[in-house]
Amino acid sequence: MRVSNDPKDLIKRVRRGDHAAASRALSLVVDENAAGEPLARDFFKSAGTVQKVGVCGPPGAGKSTLTGRLIGHYRSLKRKVGVLAVDPSSSISGGAFLGDRLRIMEHATDPGVFIRSLASRGMIGGLTHTIFGAIHVLEALGCDKIIVETVGTGQDEVDIASVVDTVLYVTTPAMGDEIQAMKAGAMEVGDVFVVNKADLAGKDKAVGDLKGALALGHGAGQAVKAWESPVVATAALSGEGVAQLAKLVDEHWTHLKKSGEGRKRLKRQHATELQFWVHRHVVKNALGRVTDKDLDDMVTRKTDPATLGRKLLQS
Amino acid sequence: MRVSNDPKDLIKRVRRGDHAAASRALSLVVDENAAGEPLARDFFKSAGTVQKVGVCGPPGAGKSTLTGRLIGHYRSLKRKVGVLAVDPSSSISGGAFLGDRLRIMEHATDPGVFIRSLASRGMIGGLTHTIFGAIHVLEALGCDKIIVETVGTGQDEVDIASVVDTVLYVTTPAMGDEIQAMKAGAMEVGDVFVVNKADLAGKDKAVGDLKGALALGHGAGQAVKAWESPVVATAALSGEGVAQLAKLVDEHWTHLKKSGEGRKRLKRQHATELQFWVHRHVVKNALGRVTDKDLDDMVTRKTDPATLGRKLLQS
Repeated sequence: MRVSNDPKDLIKRVRRGDHAAASRALSLVVDENAAGEPLARDFFKSAGTVQKVGVCGPPGAGKSTLTGRLIGHYRSLKRKVGVLAVDPSSSISGGAFLGDRLRIMEHATDPGVFIRSLASRGMIGGLTHTIFGAIHVLEALGCDKIIVETVGTGQDEVDIASVVDTVLYVTTPAMGDEIQAMKAGAMEVGDVFVVNKADLAGKDKAVGDLKGALALGHGAGQAVKAWESPVVATAALSGEGVAQLAKLVDEHWTHLKKSGEGRKRLKRQHATELQFWVHRHVVKNALGRVTDKDLDDMVTRKTDPATLGRKLLQS
Repeated sequence: MRVSNDPKDLIKRVRRGDHAAASRALSLVVDENAAGEPLARDFFKSAGTVQKVGVCGPPGAGKSTLTGRLIGHYRSLKRKVGVLAVDPSSSISGGAFLGDRLRIMEHATDPGVFIRSLASRGMIGGLTHTIFGAIHVLEALGCDKIIVETVGTGQDEVDIASVVDTVLYVTTPAMGDEIQAMKAGAMEVGDVFVVNKADLAGKDKAVGDLKGALALGHGAGQAVKAWESPVVATAALSGEGVAQLAKLVDEHWTHLKKSGEGRKRLKRQHATELQFWVHRHVVKNALGRVTDKDLDDMVTRKTDPATLGRKLLQS
């Protein structure tokens, strides 16, 4: 199907739910093409209308399989699902890793599912600067849920918390060490904790350990939160526990809306989006003017970062 | 001991090896205090003179214990060691996590060891923007090795590779899943792979799996590298293999100097440092002017990131 690049036409088609138009619009927005800017501006009007669910956790926890199951669950309820798969390591290897995400890709041909992978291309940190633009396209497209999945080297929990509304932290019974070593960051940002692969031995212990660690967190000088992050056991391969997980995700969304916490999070997301925008536009412009000679001059100590930085910003 | 903030005096003392002065200088540089700038400029002259070794890998791999052992090894050779412990998750919980790093802290009172923890304070990504400034202080202080350890949620390998000269990727025999799920990024940036906790069952299999995965990487269309990343088994608790690891670290430094790869990496580090500098000075200045009303105006759709971003940059 041919899709024009005309902004008005693209916007209209995206808002009508046209996947081909959304795909084109997303490319324009993500590539930071000048043509993407009017689109991004329009789609931003839909920001915050749809629950964004982040799936994070260590490698091997079964995040993709679980995401696939969640998609299946939402589809059984006729909800439209948008999926963004972010790959933090692609800065080096180039491509994105949807190929590894078989359980997600099973849904790729379902017209009620829109899937896109985003490479973080050389960014410092696990997120791509254009993730918010991509999210707003999916919001404008009329998705009922947006799932942001990190390929997950286990770090993304803090970053993802500035992007989504609800953070699912996925682990497994085999990851006892992981749970023990889990840093405060993960414990604090997880809104729902999932012990996946619940068919493995040690499920109850893992659930208990997590609940204990979470209770400890509450005790350690923190105010009791209105939302106490629940722990749910799932077996993504068989689908066990997935409906329960989806129920908790819905409950968290209701909590966010009722408590005012949702608006607080949306503000934080917007602040991050603004930070990304400024970074893209200023830093990249300035750094785009760095020459190989500039770098050589630093290596040979003819200049230093502060001196060179000021020069770049003045020009 | 009282240490003045006079830049000339501080610089002189740091270059004489004075730890109290280095500690003060590091605070000034890291806090982005205006007083830190002349210091940073001077210390930059020492950039690239000392091998920087990054220790990364998943949580529970024993990175801190291994780092402690490496420090002990270098101290037995009378080498002066600088240690920077970066904590990516402290953006939320505030403090840094040296408390968890018992095996490192054993060396805290050794006058031949300078240890500092750096919190990444709200940065997107696992590194703190001021890490280069901290490194240059340690270089000026006359350290013979600088070890940068991430608390490690297993993601830092790609980021750390733009900061250090030699990346140690630490895993354990119990992390078979982890090795299998290890992303191309980790495989590509690791200069030395460490199977720690080699007293656990499955050491040989883990070493073999890693070697296999590395060989596969070589086969997959990549040019054969001059340096083929070795795999070494260590038992950090007993100290087994640590001398062998230190030998490989030295060999890699020799390789970097002889092959020209070291200069290439230094250029990449300087490019990243410049990027951090520009980010700090421009983005933070611009974002420092964001008001709560601005964020509210985004939430209520009176403005959008691009419009607000332009306004901030023009003012």
